[in-house]
Amino acid sequence: MTVTTTQTAIDRARLRDLYDDYTGLLDGDDLEAWLDLFIEDCDYRVLARENDRANLPLATMRADSRAMLSDRVAAIRSTQFFADRVMRHFTSGIRIVSHDGDAVHVTASFCVIESLADEPSRIHMAGEHCDRVVDDGTALRFATKRAVYDAPLVLTSLIFPV
Amino acid sequence: MTVTTTQTAIDRARLRDLYDDYTGLLDGDDLEAWLDLFIEDCDYRVLARENDRANLPLATMRADSRAMLSDRVAAIRSTQFFADRVMRHFTSGIRIVSHDGDAVHVTASFCVIESLADEPSRIHMAGEHCDRVVDDGTALRFATKRAVYDAPLVLTSLIFPV
Amino acid sequence: MTVTTTQTAIDRARLRDLYDDYTGLLDGDDLEAWLDLFIEDCDYRVLARENDRANLPLATMRADSRAMLSDRVAAIRSTQFFADRVMRHFTSGIRIVSHDGDAVHVTASFCVIESLADEPSRIHMAGEHCDRVVDDGTALRFATKRAVYDAPLVLTSLIFPV
Repeated sequence: MTVTTTQTAIDRARLRDLYDDYTGLLDGDDLEAWLDLFIEDCDYRVLARENDRANLPLATMRADSRAMLSDRVAAIRSTQFFADRVMRHFTSGIRIVSHDGDAVHVTASFCVIESLADEPSRIHMAGEHCDRVVDDGTALRFATKRAVYDAPLVLTSLIFPV
Repeated sequence: MTVTTTQTAIDRARLRDLYDDYTGLLDGDDLEAWLDLFIEDCDYRVLARENDRANLPLATMRADSRAMLSDRVAAIRSTQFFADRVMRHFTSGIRIVSHDGDAVHVTASFCVIESLADEPSRIHMAGEHCDRVVDDGTALRFATKRAVYDAPLVLTSLIFPV
Repeated sequence: MTVTTTQTAIDRARLRDLYDDYTGLLDGDDLEAWLDLFIEDCDYRVLARENDRANLPLATMRADSRAMLSDRVAAIRSTQFFADRVMRHFTSGIRIVSHDGDAVHVTASFCVIESLADEPSRIHMAGEHCDRVVDDGTALRFATKRAVYDAPLVLTSLIFPV
């Protein structure tokens, strides 16, 4: 039995699993396992659409390696927050836009819904993930992640990763 | 050709189908078919995050069997609602968190958007499904479903299942 | 090796890819590639739930062919919009409700989140896709798409396809 396939090593079903893990680990507050979805040498940024369009380097949140992301997680763990805040992430339209050697460039729309103890749930932000995903032999991981949000934010509220 | 697989009988693609059916049947108002996604001896609860955290038994909606869920559906069918209300359910981050014999424990974030005739659509609730899913030989079904919502609710508005 | 399957040629994994492409191309503003997801002889409508229920022919947006949809895209491209508006589409509960020869009827819930430059992101609309999907030998494409929104809209804001 001969099998020929035009499928790349990184197919859409595996990408869905990756983004579901990403969302599930963030929303389940398992940030330590979430870190493991990035390569060591990753580039992670959360930035405003207007800065992204203007090619301005200013990012609202930035980590140039998994070690820096890990520091961010440690900071969250050691901080007492006044408000009991829960974030839920939703992803849609996951799509491979180009291939780059064995890696793929992926875009996906996202929305974050925020709930505080005494208010109705509301939209925290909406935007687009622009990512580079690699297969390091063990699993799919993010080499680059740019989470570009569409509307201006109250910056003080960006405590958690997107 | 020898195929070895580490995949369990309940894989992520089948889980996606199950949650899409769950959402689709609820949103399509096919509650009778929706009932069929539960085992007879199911445990279904909708509860607030603060009660879940405090291990309080108080649930906003509760059914200890599919027969009780079926009664709830019959009650909805026989009631005239003043407002023409449409609910849309969104699910994200579906993930197997542990195995329990042949069953799996699954978490997923959800969001419900509510539309009334004379108002803009708005977020009704956001939260997390914490479920136990079994394969009864015919299909995947929910043995346990706990829909834990993040923000306090106007309880009178919880008419429909989550 | 004999394979028997009850799966149709249009399975759910391929449908997910189609809807992810649909959403991703709309949100990535690649409307020209988005057009390619429709057959030439397609029927596309965006309409209010109350009109759909009453079987009223009035549609908020309508195209009786891909050529007409293409005209709509050309109009968007040639128009200067005052507001910098970004739309994000989310889909959930994709389900095959019936078969129609080799085609399938599919329903899915959707939500559109709108972001303007100076305001928080908000829900633009929620509703249901009621579609007929065919495999034309090359790819899955929409033969019919009815996007039925749940709440009344400010009609002037329906510039972009749903």
